[in-house]
Amino acid sequence: MANIQDVARHANVGVGTVSRVLSGKGYVKEETRKKVEASIAALDYIPNEMARNLFFRKSGIVAVIVPEVAHPFFSEFVNAAEVALSKRDYQMMVCNTFYESNYELKYLEMLKQQRVDGIIFGAHTSLDVSQYEKINRPIVALDRDLGNKIPCVMANHREGGRLAAEEIIRSGCKNVVQFGTLKGEDKVSTPSRIRHSVFDEIMREHGIICHPISIKWHMTDYRYYLKTAEKMFDEYPEVDGVFAADNIAMAVLHVALLRGKKVPEEFCLVGYDGTNSIGFMYPKITTIVQPISDLAEETVRLIVDIINGKPVKAKREELPVTLCVGDTTIRA
Amino acid sequence: MANIQDVARHANVGVGTVSRVLSGKGYVKEETRKKVEASIAALDYIPNEMARNLFFRKSGIVAVIVPEVAHPFFSEFVNAAEVALSKRDYQMMVCNTFYESNYELKYLEMLKQQRVDGIIFGAHTSLDVSQYEKINRPIVALDRDLGNKIPCVMANHREGGRLAAEEIIRSGCKNVVQFGTLKGEDKVSTPSRIRHSVFDEIMREHGIICHPISIKWHMTDYRYYLKTAEKMFDEYPEVDGVFAADNIAMAVLHVALLRGKKVPEEFCLVGYDGTNSIGFMYPKITTIVQPISDLAEETVRLIVDIINGKPVKAKREELPVTLCVGDTTIRA
Repeated sequence: MANIQDVARHANVGVGTVSRVLSGKGYVKEETRKKVEASIAALDYIPNEMARNLFFRKSGIVAVIVPEVAHPFFSEFVNAAEVALSKRDYQMMVCNTFYESNYELKYLEMLKQQRVDGIIFGAHTSLDVSQYEKINRPIVALDRDLGNKIPCVMANHREGGRLAAEEIIRSGCKNVVQFGTLKGEDKVSTPSRIRHSVFDEIMREHGIICHPISIKWHMTDYRYYLKTAEKMFDEYPEVDGVFAADNIAMAVLHVALLRGKKVPEEFCLVGYDGTNSIGFMYPKITTIVQPISDLAEETVRLIVDIINGKPVKAKREELPVTLCVGDTTIRA
Repeated sequence: MANIQDVARHANVGVGTVSRVLSGKGYVKEETRKKVEASIAALDYIPNEMARNLFFRKSGIVAVIVPEVAHPFFSEFVNAAEVALSKRDYQMMVCNTFYESNYELKYLEMLKQQRVDGIIFGAHTSLDVSQYEKINRPIVALDRDLGNKIPCVMANHREGGRLAAEEIIRSGCKNVVQFGTLKGEDKVSTPSRIRHSVFDEIMREHGIICHPISIKWHMTDYRYYLKTAEKMFDEYPEVDGVFAADNIAMAVLHVALLRGKKVPEEFCLVGYDGTNSIGFMYPKITTIVQPISDLAEETVRLIVDIINGKPVKAKREELPVTLCVGDTTIRA
């Protein structure tokens, strides 16, 4: 199989000249162009996309970096991002940071070396924000503060916290547990934690006891969540309401039923994320739905605009959340 | 920012020479090498990975093609494949074929053009097997027949069907429904369907009625599955046992509980896949577990071996399944 060097040798020109002929960009004498084209035909050379991209300094690839693809929220995000990128003729590279936090650095390096045209960052690991700020290349953040230069797309978590709190109040709960990752437990701040402080504040205003329980938010394994739910019911046997992300909410419902709690009469539950997997649970769990497809569509739109040199404001963009009422809360 | 052409011009050599200096492969005169290195230093040129890869005709990328990343089985497979590829210094590109069946063709084209070094095919769409056979480039199939030239990694579905049937018999079911996609409903044959015929055969041997219900196997949306389960209970009100992939099994449990069925006393259920999401359901669903991480590890091992020119047999490789007993079947 002939490569670009073979073509250059056959036509007795430089690799750069062949590259210019292939891309149609840059000046090539008519006579030389014909010679190169004849060599391409003679050697049955299939133009290598990489050669074209090398010339344009474009890879046609956007990397999507998430903690774990197997986590329902991220699997739905990655799924929708691939569809949105593919529509715009980009390929998607995916990276899990859950197992190795230094993957982030590796991908930033790839971005510098132009092996990828842009990065969508949805991971929450250990790098300092300054490492992002000094890279003058296309990056869009999903639900993550990466400084003033990088746009961030997120759901309206403040509203999410408020909707959950109101549903818990309506249900008449008096002794509530909220699961979350506390501020300061990892280096990178995510705006999704706003919902915890909003929820906590509203509980306090209404004289409702609210115990915070800190969990590893990026886990996937159901065994971890079932154990955590067991521990919660052991420690707070009098709990009558829980607010938690879908994965832990599903495990809490499992353990509540296992222990014979009447749901929602004795025990109420509000989830957060609105992933597909929560829809299978019985009874149906009341949950706050993040617009996962819209988040993907918007981050992709932004990264492609930045790659194409369109002016993009490095601001926070908040998409609306909705309350999906199930059978784990009480309505008059 | 300087590119490889700038370096070539500055050093007064061809792009191919700079490429050889960067890669360390191919002959370059000591004097020329020094001149190129001086130009690299003078222009502060960051070696472009793509330039290196162009020289080696390698992209460092493996494409993983699945019907839908959001489907629990595939999200876990993709997750594990990324970890396995990353360990071997490969990046993973992901493609969903669910939305556009012609994506498959696009990726085969990318493979021919060497934009990806290899493809792991886990999708089941509409291409004819012959289109794979004529490509003499690295491909490994997950659970899919792609002819005699392409290795296929799969779980032992024959054993899976047998284990499920035995569990249904032990539970004393007499009137069973099996969900599956019937042969001939789509062009590409997947060996995973063997479990259906094995299950059906054993039911018949034991005089157990077994109704087949055909579903769209690659769906993700829980609403589709809940509707399908509702319809099944409407059509077969006397059903006392079901064998189905996890997604539909979860929906069947939901609807069984909604209709007040006593599980497992009146109604038994065996799932298939053993994905993480099924672990959240209460009561715990008995399921046949596919070794998803091992399937990913093995397909990755094979594709990297083929890329590196190691001899690999184009055979079917079957990994063991296990029965995970939950509370939706009856044991003496």
